[in-house]
Amino acid sequence: MKNLLITVLITVVLSSVSETVSAQASSFMPRISGADIAIAEELRRKGMAGEHTAYQLVSSLTTEVGPRPGGSPADAKAVQWAVNNLRKMGFDRVWTESVDFPYWRRGDESATLVSHGNQYMALTALGGTPGTPENGITAEVVHFKTLEDLQNAEPARVRGKIAFISNRMQPSRDGSGYGRAVVARSQGPAVAAQKGALALVIRSIGTDNDRLPHTGAIRLPDNGRVVPAAALSNPDADQLVRLFEHGMRPRIELILDVGFAGKATSYNVFGEVTGSESEDFILMGAHLDSWDMGTGALDDGAGVAIVMTAADLIANQSKRPKRGIRVALFANEEQGLFGGRAYLAEQLNNESAGLMQHLFVVESDLGAGRIYRIDGRVNQLGWAMVQSIHRHLAPLGIELGENDRPGGSDIFPMIQAGVANIALRQDASEYFDLHHTDNDTLDKIDPEALNQNVAAYAVLGWLAANHDINFGTGELGPLTLN
Amino acid sequence: MKNLLITVLITVVLSSVSETVSAQASSFMPRISGADIAIAEELRRKGMAGEHTAYQLVSSLTTEVGPRPGGSPADAKAVQWAVNNLRKMGFDRVWTESVDFPYWRRGDESATLVSHGNQYMALTALGGTPGTPENGITAEVVHFKTLEDLQNAEPARVRGKIAFISNRMQPSRDGSGYGRAVVARSQGPAVAAQKGALALVIRSIGTDNDRLPHTGAIRLPDNGRVVPAAALSNPDADQLVRLFEHGMRPRIELILDVGFAGKATSYNVFGEVTGSESEDFILMGAHLDSWDMGTGALDDGAGVAIVMTAADLIANQSKRPKRGIRVALFANEEQGLFGGRAYLAEQLNNESAGLMQHLFVVESDLGAGRIYRIDGRVNQLGWAMVQSIHRHLAPLGIELGENDRPGGSDIFPMIQAGVANIALRQDASEYFDLHHTDNDTLDKIDPEALNQNVAAYAVLGWLAANHDINFGTGELGPLTLN
Repeated sequence: MKNLLITVLITVVLSSVSETVSAQASSFMPRISGADIAIAEELRRKGMAGEHTAYQLVSSLTTEVGPRPGGSPADAKAVQWAVNNLRKMGFDRVWTESVDFPYWRRGDESATLVSHGNQYMALTALGGTPGTPENGITAEVVHFKTLEDLQNAEPARVRGKIAFISNRMQPSRDGSGYGRAVVARSQGPAVAAQKGALALVIRSIGTDNDRLPHTGAIRLPDNGRVVPAAALSNPDADQLVRLFEHGMRPRIELILDVGFAGKATSYNVFGEVTGSESEDFILMGAHLDSWDMGTGALDDGAGVAIVMTAADLIANQSKRPKRGIRVALFANEEQGLFGGRAYLAEQLNNESAGLMQHLFVVESDLGAGRIYRIDGRVNQLGWAMVQSIHRHLAPLGIELGENDRPGGSDIFPMIQAGVANIALRQDASEYFDLHHTDNDTLDKIDPEALNQNVAAYAVLGWLAANHDINFGTGELGPLTLN
Repeated sequence: MKNLLITVLITVVLSSVSETVSAQASSFMPRISGADIAIAEELRRKGMAGEHTAYQLVSSLTTEVGPRPGGSPADAKAVQWAVNNLRKMGFDRVWTESVDFPYWRRGDESATLVSHGNQYMALTALGGTPGTPENGITAEVVHFKTLEDLQNAEPARVRGKIAFISNRMQPSRDGSGYGRAVVARSQGPAVAAQKGALALVIRSIGTDNDRLPHTGAIRLPDNGRVVPAAALSNPDADQLVRLFEHGMRPRIELILDVGFAGKATSYNVFGEVTGSESEDFILMGAHLDSWDMGTGALDDGAGVAIVMTAADLIANQSKRPKRGIRVALFANEEQGLFGGRAYLAEQLNNESAGLMQHLFVVESDLGAGRIYRIDGRVNQLGWAMVQSIHRHLAPLGIELGENDRPGGSDIFPMIQAGVANIALRQDASEYFDLHHTDNDTLDKIDPEALNQNVAAYAVLGWLAANHDINFGTGELGPLTLN
């Protein structure tokens, strides 16, 4: 999960549009047949009972394959794992599409507080940054509370030093604190380069107090100039802040053996449940890659297991839905939505159908917490249909949200291009304790919460696919961000 | 904190003695004067208000000195830190006594799951074990649920392999799960050697699910034969267990650059508040060293700060207590109670007074949780006095415990030798999530709970020191363990 920032911005941008849309929507509710409701109830029950257990899938992926950064040997193994498992399940068609990207590798990395007894500091390089010279960078640290403070700093204060940004991410159920804090990570390395810093260290973008730093991708500016950059674990960052508070001038030795190393190819993996009456389909996405830290259980093994299992539940009903379900397991989300962008490009090249076949896109990429709300960006009729479907999600503890809040990571380029979107919001209260750290492991997944996710995707997928309503792909217009 | 195991055993051993003692004790309650009670209430209030703040001390020790394993340069810095701070406080006398021990060092250490995509495993060597050859040990893993299972195994099953013990420590307020689980760590390396294993890995002796392994000392058998041994973090151990459950045969590469390297000297550091009428004193202990992981905030920076601050509060009253308070900050507890044993030897050599001057010993070495109970091993009159004192601890939420439950780590050799003991039990519910890991850092300390500890030690120290009652040192007889 990378693009919550964008999601948060969209919420603001779209608020004027949405008032019109949702105010009118409640007057009409599309009818769902009793037979369809009976199947939805059966799917909900089966999802909750874990009969096609998503937990087994995520256990297998995270235990036998483990961490699978884009382009690594384990990533190739994950692609094979996905193909094998989709083939064993109820999908009518399984295929892959290649995705190319620059390969970023992580070797040894360390930080030492040389001014204070050579204390070990828990730190990890940010994805996409260059490494340090082999002997590292040893320099005085200069402290900024926010990215803005660094932006406003006199270059003379920063030049030749290691810049340190200590902003703290605030926890919340919707994870919205991420967007506010992550600018230090995404934009910091370029700003530090502008100011003449030798390197950047940040307080991890995470809500825990563990000695486990959070990695994550940086944004490369047009001129490509960034400094070597890394995240300290939150207790280490707080230790550094305390040294400043105690009037000390800390010096750090930073060694990062990381950087880009040629090109790599991975694959988007697809499984499709073909519709009985139409070539249109709902796309349910997740991403197959993970960071190299942890085993990618929450990010995004859970999502992979949820959408595979939900679609398989639908496929295993006696009756195929009228329209299809396409499960898309995207490649290399973490380092820049490579799979999602490649998929969009492929669809735009497909003149005969392409994006217009996508009824809507939905993605599971915010961990394994319970879904508490359904939002979206669909047309008026589509939102009325969401309201009808919501009646059958409500028993799962899911509230009806708003039609101005798209969500998703790999599918975001499609949403920007005007594809309709539904967002099943997960409780992210604990997600950012673990996100992009060594701690993202299977034991953090609650099997019952995972099953609730499966049930919600299965009910949504079935009821939406087996109806005639369009959700607005092609009518909504592109989404632009300020 | 090392010797909970022993504490747990003692509880069993002494239970027959205690029934007699505590059944008779309630008939007599020593009187405490109104003036003494007024001072106790003032000390309790000041302790809780944090006026002589223990938090500042533990912040300074853990931030500016950091981790301080016995014999390291940081350990020497910690000794200087303690001397300087004791001198700045209200102590009448500050001194050090040297302690010698073999120096154990930790270099690089790693574990890789070579059979499954070379997954990184979070692991740390156990203190006192030998290292592996430079290129490591790569071998199949053989799984045992308990130390007993390894003890009962046919050597042919173990020979040439890496033995793995997966026992789980159970959490509880009194930390008693530690004693039951820690045998895998303390005795496992010798048992694995007997069976012909190449190495031993254990599930960490801890109650968390973080990718942060727990170190801790091993017990060297008389023949000195142990294998290289290390603890996996709990999620890593569980990953390994799952591979066995999935029918796999995992192989691990283990590299441990650790081992003994010559001799080292450190120092027990003492600060004494001299009694106004007697040379007898209460000894309040803690240990100054820590493991090299974390910054030793809970283990045992908190204890150091608690006993220093409590004694200083007493020293800063207008009136000196009749008998003294000796703060003892022991050297190298973690690697085998070296400071505590050296102190006992020194006292036994002191024919004129020695142990008999110790009214009782009490130690803070179980983190920074609130004290919930007062226990001890004292004579009948001493226990009656504990009951009188308890009335002034009860407002701190402390219950009266039993007179058959000694506690303490560095002071344990003294308790075994027959010195009276009082134990202020801390809530250890979260302690074993963090104990002996990188996560033992200042942010884990709740300043209010720390102040409650200070208040309890100050009230106990004052009321006991300013009375005439003996607690039984010299009458109790030695304590033997089965």
